[in-house]
Amino acid sequence: MADVIQSSNHVLDFAFNPGSIAIVGASDQPLSFGYHYLKHLLDYGYKGNIYPVNPAKATILNVKTYPSLGAVPEDVDFVICCVPTNRVLPLLDECPLKNVKIMHMFTARLGETGRPQARELERQIQARAKELGIHLVGPNCMGIYNSRSGVSFGYNFPIEPGDIGIVFQSGGAASMLIWFGGLQGLRFSKAISYGNALDIDESDILDYMAEDIDTKFIAAYFEGVKNGKKFLNSLKNAASKKPVVVIKGGRGISGVRAVSSHTAAIAGAHNLWQTAFNQSGVIEVKGFEAMVNQLTLFKYLRPIKGKRVGIIGGGGGKCVVAADLAEEAGLMVPPLSAEMRQKLKAIVPDLWDWLGNPIDYSIWGDSVIYAFEIPRLFVESPDFDFVIVEVSDDNPNTEDMWVNVVKLEVENIINISKNSQKPIIAILSGAKPGFDDLENIRWRTLAEQRSKLVQAKIPVFDTIAEAVSALSKYIDYWQKKN
Amino acid sequence: MADVIQSSNHVLDFAFNPGSIAIVGASDQPLSFGYHYLKHLLDYGYKGNIYPVNPAKATILNVKTYPSLGAVPEDVDFVICCVPTNRVLPLLDECPLKNVKIMHMFTARLGETGRPQARELERQIQARAKELGIHLVGPNCMGIYNSRSGVSFGYNFPIEPGDIGIVFQSGGAASMLIWFGGLQGLRFSKAISYGNALDIDESDILDYMAEDIDTKFIAAYFEGVKNGKKFLNSLKNAASKKPVVVIKGGRGISGVRAVSSHTAAIAGAHNLWQTAFNQSGVIEVKGFEAMVNQLTLFKYLRPIKGKRVGIIGGGGGKCVVAADLAEEAGLMVPPLSAEMRQKLKAIVPDLWDWLGNPIDYSIWGDSVIYAFEIPRLFVESPDFDFVIVEVSDDNPNTEDMWVNVVKLEVENIINISKNSQKPIIAILSGAKPGFDDLENIRWRTLAEQRSKLVQAKIPVFDTIAEAVSALSKYIDYWQKKN
Repeated sequence: MADVIQSSNHVLDFAFNPGSIAIVGASDQPLSFGYHYLKHLLDYGYKGNIYPVNPAKATILNVKTYPSLGAVPEDVDFVICCVPTNRVLPLLDECPLKNVKIMHMFTARLGETGRPQARELERQIQARAKELGIHLVGPNCMGIYNSRSGVSFGYNFPIEPGDIGIVFQSGGAASMLIWFGGLQGLRFSKAISYGNALDIDESDILDYMAEDIDTKFIAAYFEGVKNGKKFLNSLKNAASKKPVVVIKGGRGISGVRAVSSHTAAIAGAHNLWQTAFNQSGVIEVKGFEAMVNQLTLFKYLRPIKGKRVGIIGGGGGKCVVAADLAEEAGLMVPPLSAEMRQKLKAIVPDLWDWLGNPIDYSIWGDSVIYAFEIPRLFVESPDFDFVIVEVSDDNPNTEDMWVNVVKLEVENIINISKNSQKPIIAILSGAKPGFDDLENIRWRTLAEQRSKLVQAKIPVFDTIAEAVSALSKYIDYWQKKN
Repeated sequence: MADVIQSSNHVLDFAFNPGSIAIVGASDQPLSFGYHYLKHLLDYGYKGNIYPVNPAKATILNVKTYPSLGAVPEDVDFVICCVPTNRVLPLLDECPLKNVKIMHMFTARLGETGRPQARELERQIQARAKELGIHLVGPNCMGIYNSRSGVSFGYNFPIEPGDIGIVFQSGGAASMLIWFGGLQGLRFSKAISYGNALDIDESDILDYMAEDIDTKFIAAYFEGVKNGKKFLNSLKNAASKKPVVVIKGGRGISGVRAVSSHTAAIAGAHNLWQTAFNQSGVIEVKGFEAMVNQLTLFKYLRPIKGKRVGIIGGGGGKCVVAADLAEEAGLMVPPLSAEMRQKLKAIVPDLWDWLGNPIDYSIWGDSVIYAFEIPRLFVESPDFDFVIVEVSDDNPNTEDMWVNVVKLEVENIINISKNSQKPIIAILSGAKPGFDDLENIRWRTLAEQRSKLVQAKIPVFDTIAEAVSALSKYIDYWQKKN
């Protein structure tokens, strides 16, 4: 226990940083979550005591098991409950014997089934837990991820900790965000999926994340709220302390229906939610991919306070469409100023009058020299609040030349960004390769250069459309904040 | 020449299916397009006579060269012009000697520079070509791709021919479409990039593609029109014969400016364009990725005439958001009918009352059997006009299990689709891997399964948001058509 940090005084600390954990319903069957939760603790290096509870096995994964929670020799901070619904009440009754603080109920098939009997059992569980002073996460959820303490609900979550706190009613959706966000370089302080929210609810978790020093940004997925007034206060409080990016699930008729069978939540009218989001200054996005994009901007960029974008635009058609999409997303694409033209004149005397914003790479053709100097001018210009660089992956060259151009451009952007405070965003076409394409040199180059950009902390998007949409929301956020 | 098909009677046939080609300004320098165009002909197996013109070399790429066009021993159908602007007029004067029908001017830096002298030269070229009866493609464009005749302007374009005709003012943008669309399984009948459109214009090409028997669908990117009335007629005619998917570049202030320096076109007020698009029944999309998605639906799906979608939705949160996004895109997500519930009751007696549309994979947990039967019920149901399958790549399993589940699901969808006329669309998360992730088994599995879906002619999208947006436009098209 000595190695476990116990930041204490909020009950969720006992879930995120437990001194000891019992997995009740632990199993040696790899198809079972009672196996997964145990294996995660071992894989992620959890340092506290682990007590698998299973009356039929002496050890699981080489860890000594116990026939019941009551048989565990020490106190237990945190219980992960993987037993069927009919064994939850007896388990709760054992919890006070071991001084249990909080229990994550992976156990599901309760209120969300819509069945009267299951709903009744859920009410009994809620009442019994309250009576016994045992806090609950869930039921019907994936639970806790905190790589700092070694607790996880996924095999493919980053070991390296980060600064994004995840407050998700859906564990599957949280898993997607952690995996795909992880590929983009996002890292997480803590994640919690809270399912039916019988006890600990969205407001409690928001309050916790708002205070958590490891959490700089909050990503939240809500299906319903337990208490509207409490929620609005918690949301406002959290949003006043750190950026909060939100998806509300259940916005339309069929979504509301789906929410009901997923977490039994009351989705509520979406206009009320939007009012709450506006009042509290959170950023609403509509889908999980858009959330990854938004978080990527927060992670890598300083605040952007103006909407004037300089676009280094790849070939001609791409430039035109980039300008259109940027404007349609609410950004401004100003023409080159007289000062800028004078500077261009000095380095490209034969092109300065023709070039514009977006600036068309194909105009200077094979003259790679300009490709180095012009992005620098754009980044240095006071006319632009930020710069988007479309890597010219549309250049119509041979494989070798294409690879070379793309590499040089990326290297150049990275070098420029090192010496500048100006926010830079890169677009690198998001090919959707099939298996045969994995060995394709062009495609491998895109993957390689994407890694380099991520390492250099430059947000990289597949499409200009995604980028300008995320950027527009990002700037709105900072403008409102001022 | 015997091997070359000459479908004749339209001058563009001499560009798409030339009996002989001269590349004027051919070069042995791999940085030069005079080298590229020659190499493409060799790589793509062009079967007619090839005449590189270069006064300083005896052969280039082992092909005998000629000091001038006039020195070529035979007639030449098609000239690819890569010489600087000041040598275009003398070249035109030589064309009648060789009975040249049409010339592609890769040569650029004319009207699009905005410079009076260049504009004047462009006017002279236009007048001279007209006087001599030589038709022009361009100037300032990439030209022609027809893999059936072995003419190409890219190294990475499919050799295998297809049924999409590309009419693009921008060659770089066309290259992107051909490459990225190619990765998605799209194949092309013919492509032309026509740049400044001095002679052959967008209307001429639309007329040609409308009649071309190899072209079933048209993808077009316009920046401006030369003659509005002619254009509207051509657009209406083409759209009455085959689906036409259009991007109009230069929709806003900065886009219009970018158009001017790209192809010197007059972009025109976008509301006029939209009126033209509506009147003619073409599908407008805003970006190149959206165009690939739209074409993918046309290629793989029969017409869909209703908006009722059944969604097999992955985990709970994903289901909820899928329903929201589908409705927000204008689709209908009906609840399960009484008949459907009865059928479900027969196969999943413990879940039939709980399941819904979207149907949540995570509800049946590890029972893979249901995962086979339920998608079949959805596909067979008369309640749905089409079915979206979100592969459950959010399932929180170990690598091996995850891979197995994803593979089984995809295999099942493919089997079901073989015995059904119902349109099926798959969503497979579009991870954006870095270089280190290329060996990641999850990521490789996604790439592999994407290939299998493409081979099975099932459209596959990265995100539900992209899919529902493209589907909604697709259905609108067929509903209007009726």
